Amino acid sequence: MTPLAPGETIGILGGGQLGRLLSLAAARLGFDVHIYCPAADTPAARVSAASTVAAYEDEAALARFANACSVVTYEFENVPVSAVETVEAAGCPVRPGAKALDVSQDRLNEKTFLRSIGIGTVDFVAVEGPEALAPALEAIGGAGILKTRREGYDGKGQVRLFPDGRGLADAEALAAKSPCILEAFAPFEREVSVIIARTPAALLAYDPAENTHEQGILVRSQVPAGISTAVTKAVFAAGRRLADALDYVGVFGLEVFVLPGGEVLANEMAPRVHNSGHWTADACVTGQFEQHIRAVAGWALGSAQRHYDVDMRNALGAAIADMPHIDDPFVRQTLYGKRESRKGRKMAHFTRLTPLGSAAQTLER
Amino acid sequence: MTPLAPGETIGILGGGQLGRLLSLAAARLGFDVHIYCPAADTPAARVSAASTVAAYEDEAALARFANACSVVTYEFENVPVSAVETVEAAGCPVRPGAKALDVSQDRLNEKTFLRSIGIGTVDFVAVEGPEALAPALEAIGGAGILKTRREGYDGKGQVRLFPDGRGLADAEALAAKSPCILEAFAPFEREVSVIIARTPAALLAYDPAENTHEQGILVRSQVPAGISTAVTKAVFAAGRRLADALDYVGVFGLEVFVLPGGEVLANEMAPRVHNSGHWTADACVTGQFEQHIRAVAGWALGSAQRHYDVDMRNALGAAIADMPHIDDPFVRQTLYGKRESRKGRKMAHFTRLTPLGSAAQTLER
Repeated sequence: MTPLAPGETIGILGGGQLGRLLSLAAARLGFDVHIYCPAADTPAARVSAASTVAAYEDEAALARFANACSVVTYEFENVPVSAVETVEAAGCPVRPGAKALDVSQDRLNEKTFLRSIGIGTVDFVAVEGPEALAPALEAIGGAGILKTRREGYDGKGQVRLFPDGRGLADAEALAAKSPCILEAFAPFEREVSVIIARTPAALLAYDPAENTHEQGILVRSQVPAGISTAVTKAVFAAGRRLADALDYVGVFGLEVFVLPGGEVLANEMAPRVHNSGHWTADACVTGQFEQHIRAVAGWALGSAQRHYDVDMRNALGAAIADMPHIDDPFVRQTLYGKRESRKGRKMAHFTRLTPLGSAAQTLER
Repeated sequence: MTPLAPGETIGILGGGQLGRLLSLAAARLGFDVHIYCPAADTPAARVSAASTVAAYEDEAALARFANACSVVTYEFENVPVSAVETVEAAGCPVRPGAKALDVSQDRLNEKTFLRSIGIGTVDFVAVEGPEALAPALEAIGGAGILKTRREGYDGKGQVRLFPDGRGLADAEALAAKSPCILEAFAPFEREVSVIIARTPAALLAYDPAENTHEQGILVRSQVPAGISTAVTKAVFAAGRRLADALDYVGVFGLEVFVLPGGEVLANEMAPRVHNSGHWTADACVTGQFEQHIRAVAGWALGSAQRHYDVDMRNALGAAIADMPHIDDPFVRQTLYGKRESRKGRKMAHFTRLTPLGSAAQTLER
């Protein structure tokens, strides 16, 4: 993999906040960035040297985009695989490739793949239509979460089912609309995630974060996570196994459940920089955004060493209006430049940093 | 000063690397940036939402620019004061204002101002034409540096004069061309600089850096500087006095000479983010670029606390070609996106970080 030279162009499929933060990281390394997104005036395009506004199905536009870039990456996992294949067919490498995208786009394929490489998951059953719901429910113990196989994120496209029949009507409606997967509830003690960066030459993991979700949306990540060294090792082992199995190039996030006995079950992976790793840009020598750019550009990875304890909160919806008034000098603010605030929409994140080994700071906590 | 809301536009006069790094910092806070620069395709414009390519004397373009921005700042001190005044006259505040620019653009005014507020400098004499050179030289002890009063930077527009007559012909030619100032040599032990951030409500200083220049160009900054607590206090006192005297809003750099006895003499100030403070973006909770944006946007300042020791090197000219191959994971790389490399041109900087309180790292040093 020949390293890109400064001044070459990195293409990004997608124009949201992850694309924006990737673009800023690429700029600091001297690269130009070209954003490809069906929407105009996106957070990412506004900080990038070039942008294409076109559909992911527009093969001619994708080919022109491919010709303008030295390498292409994607900022979200619901980019159609066909778009990635079109860019690759036009002669431009896409990192991470179509395989990671393909695996992660379909929850059934994802969990099946994880199990096939020896990573534990909750029990699950495919649900093809509403009539398959009752037998599936019985197979996993009478309760669980029905999820669409594709497209859902931040808690969308999910119905919780309980032994007393709660959720059944909604679940039948969902199963009638889309192919689904029924997952058993995980009796987890903590939700933890790990950010992995991999190149053909190197693999590293950031310290795991402990996450809090509300209505399926991440609202808080804390580092260090309240887990033992043994659990940390198990999380790292799962991340490494997955990275190697996908021959991954770039950064991904792996969310896991930690059970009361210390068992680690993979929940899902995202083949991109991850919300639960946003703190790395504030607290580590090299943040996840720069790390991803370095990897896809064929550069050596930077250190992931961490020098602050972290309490990261997401600002959802209208909470953004209060942000400039936060004047805690140890809270780092990252705003996404979104023009419209909607309920539950991720608008920004705050990271409270506590320097490691600082006696004064420790006393304050 | 009403704080800017996320999504408002910050204007920057100038399109170089300082504008680029300011723009990236502004983007992280959710602002849009509009670059005004006579040159097209600049490092700053390529990462900004909007740009105007027009002369600093184009009053109509400046007025349009002012109308498009909520606040305007500048990234270098040689922006004509008239341009700043035109923007202000069009109703857009410029921070820091015209006064800091006016003082710093003329070395004679600058040193006169510094002395007027009780900050020591080397001895100096105005030189108006070549015939004034001999008496000026005699007045400051027979040796010194002749500098143009305006426009010089990175060692340009300077001639060193020695008691044996070396430099005299070049100095006469320079004095014939431009109004000059003759400065005594400072018998300094170290060159040190401090980055100051000030708002109407707060003032803070970053740890001083110890600088190395070659042929008038900064090549290296090290933190901590090898100076005593007493000298550090004297440096901070000079910075505070200057900031308050200018009623400054934003970040500036003050370069000083430290004499063998510990006396501190101001060399020059730059009313902008400063090359010798680039390490702050890698080693402190809040870097100088974000701090400047926060100040001009009317936001509270972030912490300037430092958590790494630093060795920063500038990459000049063609050295840029070797940069991607630096694979020390503790070296942070910032490339400026310049299309052309010229001898002595600042293309990038590297920052080697050594975590504070890290035993392993301390052993390595």
